[in-house]
Amino acid sequence: VKTIAIVGVGLIGGSFALALRKAGFKGKIIGVSSPSTVEKALACGVIDEALPLAQAAAAADLVYLSQPISRILATLDVLETDALITDAGSTKAVICERAGKLKRGRFVGGHPMAGKESRGVEQADADLFRGRPYVLTSREPQLETWIERFGARLVLLDPAEHDRQVAFVSHLPQLLSTTLASVLAGKEQVAGPAAADLTRLALSPYDIWRDIFATNAEPIDAALSAFIARLEEVRGHLRASDMEALFSQAAASARALRGK
Amino acid sequence: VKTIAIVGVGLIGGSFALALRKAGFKGKIIGVSSPSTVEKALACGVIDEALPLAQAAAAADLVYLSQPISRILATLDVLETDALITDAGSTKAVICERAGKLKRGRFVGGHPMAGKESRGVEQADADLFRGRPYVLTSREPQLETWIERFGARLVLLDPAEHDRQVAFVSHLPQLLSTTLASVLAGKEQVAGPAAADLTRLALSPYDIWRDIFATNAEPIDAALSAFIARLEEVRGHLRASDMEALFSQAAASARALRGK
Repeated sequence: VKTIAIVGVGLIGGSFALALRKAGFKGKIIGVSSPSTVEKALACGVIDEALPLAQAAAAADLVYLSQPISRILATLDVLETDALITDAGSTKAVICERAGKLKRGRFVGGHPMAGKESRGVEQADADLFRGRPYVLTSREPQLETWIERFGARLVLLDPAEHDRQVAFVSHLPQLLSTTLASVLAGKEQVAGPAAADLTRLALSPYDIWRDIFATNAEPIDAALSAFIARLEEVRGHLRASDMEALFSQAAASARALRGK
Repeated sequence: VKTIAIVGVGLIGGSFALALRKAGFKGKIIGVSSPSTVEKALACGVIDEALPLAQAAAAADLVYLSQPISRILATLDVLETDALITDAGSTKAVICERAGKLKRGRFVGGHPMAGKESRGVEQADADLFRGRPYVLTSREPQLETWIERFGARLVLLDPAEHDRQVAFVSHLPQLLSTTLASVLAGKEQVAGPAAADLTRLALSPYDIWRDIFATNAEPIDAALSAFIARLEEVRGHLRASDMEALFSQAAASARALRGK
């Protein structure tokens, strides 16, 4: 790979560029973004050059789509390139299906499971992916090499399985936090750290979530059903002694989620 | 108040003792606890003296019950004192009802909304209550003065209303976190910070929660019902544009829970 085009130079796209540099990439990094973002990305040294999509795609061997999901879909509709193409969208089935209509180039879906509370290229971080899962929807040695050099953990999942898993580990927690914050409105009087802890995700802006709900509604619906069924069970056992077993099992799972 | 008996010298009881000293209390602080706890509390300078319950209660003008709920109930069954009595139990209706059977002394229920991840008198902290709500179930000038000097925020609530409010802001978040961790068991592969965030409370040990569930099952059941109903609504609106309104309302509530 000599030339990489990053389409959407925000937190993820910018971090991909910085991680590439840190991992030894010597080629050219072209950014495709709004004029104000491109200006910031050039000023931070995140990209070498800014071009419109058509020219960047024509010049690149690798095109990295790190826009919001709806923008990735719009880009795929007009993209013309012979390059390897990958993306960083939070859902995979709809994007991979749309990419199946590309007349040229080769597409491998991707999803780095990383983020920060603040967005924007100013927050870009060469170590954002380190120690975190990085999903690819199929094997692709070039991408796998970079993912390994970033210190990320490669996870191969087909698009539908990816979407089912993130519905549980990412979209369900968000909806629980948002719903809890909504239910607690006006009940702040005696709230302590537990309420603050569980409603932190509810501070997330809606704009990313609109696209996620629109492209992953069925798996999210299934995750919500599974959660509600378990919570109804818990409700039925409030006064029973087997709540202790639930607490032990849940604590073991919570430790596993922390890699302990 | 010249002499205070603290029954149960753990994180809360120990912090109450240290907060009293910091707020200028010059009298004697007697601890009632297991031999090993009493030894640590004396070594840390948290208490001045250790006595069995009957002698401590006879000597004190103020008795502070900071044991687990079931132990507070057992203490109330045998307590004989003419002192002012208060407690720090996480639910209030069952405790206040039991205290109504006291033949002597005057009882005012209390609940400092404060805690730490680690327990024990070694974690005691003179500033544990600072900036946090401190619930009393009725007015009591002596206690109100100390609460104010601790830098805590006095909240007056009758026992049933207290229990309804904590079912929402404290017991519901715990059960959501525990249930989520249980549902996510085996799904760690692509879990990110959202899952870790929402399952932190699931690491809590069960022993405190057994007493809370046993003494607050009805309000918790009502809070679970309200949450499940709202979550079912959310599920019905996944594909609808009014999710944006939910996100805004939830974010405003989440900010209010942080005092912003």
